[in-house]
Amino acid sequence: MKNIRVAIVGATGYTSLETIRWLLKHPAAGITYLASRKQEQPISELFPELLGRVSLPIAPFDVAAIKKAAEVVFLCLPHVAAMEHVPPLLDAGLRVIDLSADYRIKDAAIYEKWYKHAHSDAKNLATAVYGLPEFFTPAIRQARLVGNPGCYPTAGILGIAPLLREELVEPTDIIINAASGISGAGRTPSPQHHFPERNENFEPYGIGTHRHAPEIQQTLETLSGQPVDMLFVPHLIPMDRGILETIYLKPRKGVTLDDATQAMEQAYNGKPFVRLRRHNLPGTKYVANTNFADIAVKFSNGRLVVIVAIDNMVKGAAGQAIENMNLMFGLDETAGLL
Amino acid sequence: MKNIRVAIVGATGYTSLETIRWLLKHPAAGITYLASRKQEQPISELFPELLGRVSLPIAPFDVAAIKKAAEVVFLCLPHVAAMEHVPPLLDAGLRVIDLSADYRIKDAAIYEKWYKHAHSDAKNLATAVYGLPEFFTPAIRQARLVGNPGCYPTAGILGIAPLLREELVEPTDIIINAASGISGAGRTPSPQHHFPERNENFEPYGIGTHRHAPEIQQTLETLSGQPVDMLFVPHLIPMDRGILETIYLKPRKGVTLDDATQAMEQAYNGKPFVRLRRHNLPGTKYVANTNFADIAVKFSNGRLVVIVAIDNMVKGAAGQAIENMNLMFGLDETAGLL
Amino acid sequence: MKNIRVAIVGATGYTSLETIRWLLKHPAAGITYLASRKQEQPISELFPELLGRVSLPIAPFDVAAIKKAAEVVFLCLPHVAAMEHVPPLLDAGLRVIDLSADYRIKDAAIYEKWYKHAHSDAKNLATAVYGLPEFFTPAIRQARLVGNPGCYPTAGILGIAPLLREELVEPTDIIINAASGISGAGRTPSPQHHFPERNENFEPYGIGTHRHAPEIQQTLETLSGQPVDMLFVPHLIPMDRGILETIYLKPRKGVTLDDATQAMEQAYNGKPFVRLRRHNLPGTKYVANTNFADIAVKFSNGRLVVIVAIDNMVKGAAGQAIENMNLMFGLDETAGLL
Amino acid sequence: MKNIRVAIVGATGYTSLETIRWLLKHPAAGITYLASRKQEQPISELFPELLGRVSLPIAPFDVAAIKKAAEVVFLCLPHVAAMEHVPPLLDAGLRVIDLSADYRIKDAAIYEKWYKHAHSDAKNLATAVYGLPEFFTPAIRQARLVGNPGCYPTAGILGIAPLLREELVEPTDIIINAASGISGAGRTPSPQHHFPERNENFEPYGIGTHRHAPEIQQTLETLSGQPVDMLFVPHLIPMDRGILETIYLKPRKGVTLDDATQAMEQAYNGKPFVRLRRHNLPGTKYVANTNFADIAVKFSNGRLVVIVAIDNMVKGAAGQAIENMNLMFGLDETAGLL
Repeated sequence: MKNIRVAIVGATGYTSLETIRWLLKHPAAGITYLASRKQEQPISELFPELLGRVSLPIAPFDVAAIKKAAEVVFLCLPHVAAMEHVPPLLDAGLRVIDLSADYRIKDAAIYEKWYKHAHSDAKNLATAVYGLPEFFTPAIRQARLVGNPGCYPTAGILGIAPLLREELVEPTDIIINAASGISGAGRTPSPQHHFPERNENFEPYGIGTHRHAPEIQQTLETLSGQPVDMLFVPHLIPMDRGILETIYLKPRKGVTLDDATQAMEQAYNGKPFVRLRRHNLPGTKYVANTNFADIAVKFSNGRLVVIVAIDNMVKGAAGQAIENMNLMFGLDETAGLL
Repeated sequence: MKNIRVAIVGATGYTSLETIRWLLKHPAAGITYLASRKQEQPISELFPELLGRVSLPIAPFDVAAIKKAAEVVFLCLPHVAAMEHVPPLLDAGLRVIDLSADYRIKDAAIYEKWYKHAHSDAKNLATAVYGLPEFFTPAIRQARLVGNPGCYPTAGILGIAPLLREELVEPTDIIINAASGISGAGRTPSPQHHFPERNENFEPYGIGTHRHAPEIQQTLETLSGQPVDMLFVPHLIPMDRGILETIYLKPRKGVTLDDATQAMEQAYNGKPFVRLRRHNLPGTKYVANTNFADIAVKFSNGRLVVIVAIDNMVKGAAGQAIENMNLMFGLDETAGLL
Repeated sequence: MKNIRVAIVGATGYTSLETIRWLLKHPAAGITYLASRKQEQPISELFPELLGRVSLPIAPFDVAAIKKAAEVVFLCLPHVAAMEHVPPLLDAGLRVIDLSADYRIKDAAIYEKWYKHAHSDAKNLATAVYGLPEFFTPAIRQARLVGNPGCYPTAGILGIAPLLREELVEPTDIIINAASGISGAGRTPSPQHHFPERNENFEPYGIGTHRHAPEIQQTLETLSGQPVDMLFVPHLIPMDRGILETIYLKPRKGVTLDDATQAMEQAYNGKPFVRLRRHNLPGTKYVANTNFADIAVKFSNGRLVVIVAIDNMVKGAAGQAIENMNLMFGLDETAGLL
Repeated sequence: MKNIRVAIVGATGYTSLETIRWLLKHPAAGITYLASRKQEQPISELFPELLGRVSLPIAPFDVAAIKKAAEVVFLCLPHVAAMEHVPPLLDAGLRVIDLSADYRIKDAAIYEKWYKHAHSDAKNLATAVYGLPEFFTPAIRQARLVGNPGCYPTAGILGIAPLLREELVEPTDIIINAASGISGAGRTPSPQHHFPERNENFEPYGIGTHRHAPEIQQTLETLSGQPVDMLFVPHLIPMDRGILETIYLKPRKGVTLDDATQAMEQAYNGKPFVRLRRHNLPGTKYVANTNFADIAVKFSNGRLVVIVAIDNMVKGAAGQAIENMNLMFGLDETAGLL
């Protein structure tokens, strides 16, 4: 029944856990290989919620074995590590969905500037497809390598691109005020994400220096064909999951709220995972544990304000990766995700 | 020892509780009268943390009795109710610190527009002093009636006024992205603030319609002498206390980060409760249960970004009210607050 | 495809929302009727997360219409209201799964004592089946009316019954220390469950007076054939979902941890939703959003300590209700629940 | 004014931070020396909330310098490290309040069994005083070395000792079900206390193996003069601060709730930090940021149930340490703590 066989490489992080959670419910895809350098513990001890659900051992990264076991690889590794693993997997004929940042930014010089590491896989970077289905579905269907979008970029691009593409807003006066739950920081403990430091705390970080900024900028420029300048300010919210972005845009002369609403409706007509909210504003809780992106548009004091909420672990990571897999393998885009 | 005797009117809400907490530690002021319409329960049953700390009964609102018991009244009533109670208290010779919105907005028409109720006490509105000590200390010292600032306005004005006054930023391109813990919503249960609705949820509300917007605007105009236009977008954070405002300002031509930093330093030199942060950004936890306002300024993508954090219940309400009391009675501004 | 048609009566509470969430993913059952006295708002405004997922209107309680639309009714009403709605539904030939307490306690006098209301439906009470599949599957398969167990009782009975039935522990020296997330308190706002009162608070309530105590006692007596005495102390945890019970049992003479472990293994062998934990202790997070009950047994200082964790909204309410439906309609017990 | 000069050794942990917080408000004691091996950062960068409050540098552990600067040392080091630092400080004539476990357990063999390390300072262990003022005030007044009680033991002993001493309950049938906020785990990040692991999670740990158990047992035996057997089961609550213990005791024959209540009243008559609750049960929030221990007693199903709540960082650590200092220096026990 489960005729798409999935390998997860980098199985011990939160994006892997989230991918496993969703694939366990997927009607057509199943996990057949788990790879990690850390093989001491069964996955069900590492992630107690998987007890009785997953009995696969954690195995080494062995391309031949993966090739035998799977058609597609979800790469849940940190950046840099990802681009070291992609070439052999592609060479072996596997399809790869990379959840790191390594294949999202097309310009290797920009990648190097922000990630402080030269890109070592220019060949595959050139052909990698940016896996945001709302805008790139045809390319995703053909892709052998998908760069799965970052969590903040997913929300930001969904909220801005339709208005920018229709030339309703100024491309160089964009402010994204973003806030995220703590799961976005990954599974490695750190002083900053120690429970007593984060609980009951709301705090900005990385003002103008967050690595997701160039990813958003590049994609908005690609989609709108114009240079974009944007200020991106992320914050940490004391909760598990969810991103909410409050985006401030300057409307071009004469543009109305109706114009903006129509652009959104046209852009997302038929897109199964974008919901335009009219009666309530988006909130992180209303998209938690779903693959939806909720969007609302308001007009106030000369600004268009766009609110976007997603679950950073689902539409912002594992859910969107599965959405991409669905498209790559000719399944319904929503398979296993509703 | 405690020679300033304080009455609290509207004793059963959160601002009252917070005022009591702080006055219990105050070296020169003590609570002598608690008034509320609800007199069924001792205050220590209503607020279990006060058990053994406060034995005063909850009494009716009786001006003569209050006059006998106290020199100063902290009015912790909802708006509209406040302006019904102020005239008799002032007429009896008491000084009043009003924690509602009723004496903050000078223009009664603006008050009526935003609070949907005509102002019934024009006389005292005219002489009420806006109780933000960083800017109005001389008037506060002389005041008989102080309109204690709102929580969002306190943070917003502290973050913007110095830059606006020095003409470093455009007065009509101001965006305040604000977020608050839930204690700001008061003690009355409501569906919106029911635990399971708010927990693990981050959500905007009142975009362009929040009543604190005109209060911020008025004060910035007063302080800078120019018309101000401002977009104010509040959010709810799943935590108890704390406000963090991320303020986006457009610098005037040639203005640098140094200019902005210097303006802040000059404005708050000698002000005991404003802390300019250089090494860390402000976070709500670092001001929780204190009367501090923490401020940082950054420059990115053509914007000055000002971050301000306060405890909404302290610098945003009860603490600032006590600061005002200290000034009105010739005490050290910090008495009982450090 | 979805050939089991489900009506939900009392559609505006949290157990209804949870039932809807799970039925949306169910392979064989679909929602065809939503009834409530409150019909002002579409369900997707009431529960913003359902936007785009459910377009059924909220309709009145009309037995004929329900009969036409559905085979089975999930009754998500408060107690007392439930027993007023059950007779006409059963008379119309519908099967009913009642999520209230009305059909759980077999002895109407005990019901009246604890719920302060006479039981008005003795006839159906007599034939109602207690819907705990781990112990009553054959009866559930035949049932026309299931009393779906309470959240605390589900965890408590699963943790104690195997040991009691095998006579490994004293039946009159049982202490259940229970703790629950706040969703268990329902959707109606109250001072006790107002966010600022519950957040950062851990607090016991209802010591010896909680209504779930007689339900646990009755079922343990039924299952073990001996009189049971038990002390039940619940607490509130500042989080959304999850129950954890720490159960203190006195082993009979000579009983070892191995004996207890074996009794658990035998009792739950082949039961798809009970997981015995050996390497980690149960925690609420590891069962959140699942229908699992996780159990561990320890022996210390002369006591057997049993830890049980469930999601109060799933195994403790809606998930178990669907598990019962699966059994009543001949489906696999796990359909839609894994 | 501040004539008691305090040194803190081990200045970079949470107990140090909490001590600093309270000493800043103390009328008679001030911090004059901060020692730690980590001296890279000013304390106000390490603990952002101290910005502008503390300008002392972090200095090395230099006994001569400490002797010059201070009369009393708060030792905020981990166990083992503490007993290496105590002898030179005492030899220099300083008084020491040790917040680690090193001087709490009188029997070095028991210490070694639970802490897996031989005790190296038998001499001072013999004369150290257990710093629980409710029971040992005369000895504390004379002490040169105080072993400041653990957080769980403080709550447990306060809840049990009066009943045990009056022979109202069985000494060998005691169950302490304890739950703590996460600050109790200290400031070092770990997988277990990483925000996404702890948030929305309630979980037991260390059943029968927690190191606070022998400390409770020893003190109860000392206070009641009889052998005690006790089962101690701690849990983690997703919140910052607070301990709540639900204690199950078996009353001796004929003992009533009134007997228990009277024993509590007698034991704590005149003790400024114990509050007996009659109208509400204790909850962690009602003692947060205070030095109070709230206690209630109930009788149900043949058991006396005692509920105790404290703030683990205050009465369970720094607050009690200051209470001990007050007694050692002849101040009012409550100085700086109300």
